[in-house]
Amino acid sequence: MMRNLRVDANRIQSDLEALAAITDPGRPWTRRAFSPRFDEGRGWLARRFAEAGLTVSHDAGGNLIGRRAGSAGGLGTILLGSHSDTVPDGGRFDGVAGVVVALEVARTLAERGHELRHDLGIVDFLAEEVSVFGVSCIGSRAMAGVLPADWMGLTHEGRTLETAMRDVGGAPEDIAARDDIRAFLELHIEQGPVLEDSGCDLGIVTAIAGITRVEIVLTGRPDHAGTTPMTGRGDALVAAAGLVSAIEAEARDRAAQGSHFTATVGEFSMEPNAANVVPGRVRMLIDARAADRAQMLGFLDWIDARCAALPEAIAVEVRRLSDNQPTPMDGALIDRLDAAADRCGARHRRMVSGAGHDAAFMARIAPAAMVFVPCLGGRSHCPEEWAETADIALGAEVLAETVIALDQG
Amino acid sequence: MMRNLRVDANRIQSDLEALAAITDPGRPWTRRAFSPRFDEGRGWLARRFAEAGLTVSHDAGGNLIGRRAGSAGGLGTILLGSHSDTVPDGGRFDGVAGVVVALEVARTLAERGHELRHDLGIVDFLAEEVSVFGVSCIGSRAMAGVLPADWMGLTHEGRTLETAMRDVGGAPEDIAARDDIRAFLELHIEQGPVLEDSGCDLGIVTAIAGITRVEIVLTGRPDHAGTTPMTGRGDALVAAAGLVSAIEAEARDRAAQGSHFTATVGEFSMEPNAANVVPGRVRMLIDARAADRAQMLGFLDWIDARCAALPEAIAVEVRRLSDNQPTPMDGALIDRLDAAADRCGARHRRMVSGAGHDAAFMARIAPAAMVFVPCLGGRSHCPEEWAETADIALGAEVLAETVIALDQG
Repeated sequence: MMRNLRVDANRIQSDLEALAAITDPGRPWTRRAFSPRFDEGRGWLARRFAEAGLTVSHDAGGNLIGRRAGSAGGLGTILLGSHSDTVPDGGRFDGVAGVVVALEVARTLAERGHELRHDLGIVDFLAEEVSVFGVSCIGSRAMAGVLPADWMGLTHEGRTLETAMRDVGGAPEDIAARDDIRAFLELHIEQGPVLEDSGCDLGIVTAIAGITRVEIVLTGRPDHAGTTPMTGRGDALVAAAGLVSAIEAEARDRAAQGSHFTATVGEFSMEPNAANVVPGRVRMLIDARAADRAQMLGFLDWIDARCAALPEAIAVEVRRLSDNQPTPMDGALIDRLDAAADRCGARHRRMVSGAGHDAAFMARIAPAAMVFVPCLGGRSHCPEEWAETADIALGAEVLAETVIALDQG
Repeated sequence: MMRNLRVDANRIQSDLEALAAITDPGRPWTRRAFSPRFDEGRGWLARRFAEAGLTVSHDAGGNLIGRRAGSAGGLGTILLGSHSDTVPDGGRFDGVAGVVVALEVARTLAERGHELRHDLGIVDFLAEEVSVFGVSCIGSRAMAGVLPADWMGLTHEGRTLETAMRDVGGAPEDIAARDDIRAFLELHIEQGPVLEDSGCDLGIVTAIAGITRVEIVLTGRPDHAGTTPMTGRGDALVAAAGLVSAIEAEARDRAAQGSHFTATVGEFSMEPNAANVVPGRVRMLIDARAADRAQMLGFLDWIDARCAALPEAIAVEVRRLSDNQPTPMDGALIDRLDAAADRCGARHRRMVSGAGHDAAFMARIAPAAMVFVPCLGGRSHCPEEWAETADIALGAEVLAETVIALDQG
């Protein structure tokens, strides 16, 4: 449904189409960070930022910034934005919708004569997706002052990340946490089915789930498949299968307790992987996500206990590869977004983000919150990823409302 | 325990050591069919065959044959043998023990003045193991007249199987089933733990299990691992894990009914195999083996029913890639081997072979039977594969006894 909004839905749609056209040929929609295509997209964005009357710059972390000074001076910045880089094949809305919406909010406020007391910033964060350097959220980590110094030496095809950041306008030696941001707001597609399934126009994010990755290696005995009786085998795959089933059941139980919880065995491989040999070794990687840290700690304890209970013929190693805390969004900002969504007549709900976002790093230095728009079938990171312009425009309207309310104090 | 035997255990050990020394350098023990190392091993064997007073030739199927004519003429051939080719890294006893034992029986009978009425043949079958051409039991299939004609065009590094067979002395155009074999006997290491676990010196094989390979492909939906709730997923790995567990339980149940039965998921792979994506597709390959065809048919029906009961979110394809019947060994030969083993004072038991052997093809054209010797820890197809000379010599003695008994009628 197209509503009577102050933001211009047609302009949002036209911007999204223009950026979609800036894709690696033959594999829509691909505009990976540090590629020539990415530079082309940013060039296009910088021209639109400038046309909207914003001062355009790159910060030390290689983020593209558009800025309009506030009338009061010294009140700090209200910052909106997301990222324009994509995963391979799947970047028609993921990230770029939030950049276009930030631009549209800036344009709408200017056109409607809303002079803000605060500075207004819009941002295209550098390399939110896992880039060719194997790491993610480079720009938002930099803005929050938490970009690991040793990442500068990461190298791809002979170029270090430090050089690559300079090549997009950054100045790594000057990276420092910003302290002027009074609020950060990010619109993003949901990347899941919750809004669509519940018939909502928008989601107000209450927290970004913590992500913990656990590697489990099971070692059994690679015997001859035909001559080794079923009893007395050390079949690593059979042990792993029991573990996969148990992990799924445990994750369902935890999710049923109400707080967002998922656990997925996303990587799984075995050796020797030969038709006539009993599997001798399995490696699996669990991706677990929780909005509630206590749930995650409980799950990690459960994994240890479950692995300790494996049959004696199976040796097990459990390694925690990464372990990030959940990030609650700012309560006052959530309330303001709820109120703005009500005023705009949006069907909305609160929800947890199971995916990571730049907002998780912004939350370290400022009150931060997010608005989700539905995506078709919950699909994301694939060419079929789709979101309706009407939903994106409604999200932009809610952000514009919220910015005005925030500016008024 | 070394016994007082007519066969020469030291000579068997010396032959096995000499053949073990003919290995690809740096990867003991490797002497793959159609390699220069294989030719070297066969040259060594041909000289030993000739030294034993046998007439040496290659048959149309590329098998190395040693022959001594019988005194009666026209009674047909008693044939003994196995194969001298190996898998990569694991061929110190697998196959070659049976060739050396056949040679030792021929030598012992000659030395002890046992002139046979039947012709005596000993054979080194060509390429019992899966060779570089991707197929196995080439020589025994040829001798049984069942070598598929279209295999002649199989190509490895620019050489066809037809040419490779000529290169080892074969004449593929002349292949025909032999009709003169009155009995075929093969000694082989067990390649499993049954004899060792039951404290036996020898196993008398009652049947070679049928092998059926079933491919199952499960297709779910590769959603985002963080944003897709646990309910409503189409996780192909979770479905596959349940199937692997059920297959193992079903196979245990069938094995517990007494007849040899195994089922192993030996190949298993999934897509996209990415940490943050719900598994969308799993392919698995089941290797099932049964001495009793009815057990196999029941298992195949069970697989179909179990796959039909998978959740609706998982599409399933089941394909039978190969399906070979079990091969019973000859009842009269089994009785003769039992009797000979008793006379030799061997602790022996009847058992099923879970692995395939040349004897399965010989059984198509002649009464055939096998003697197994224990191997350490049931290990095979690996550098650690080990069998005791005392057991191999005892097996040779039992074969010599049996040949004499058969010859007498």
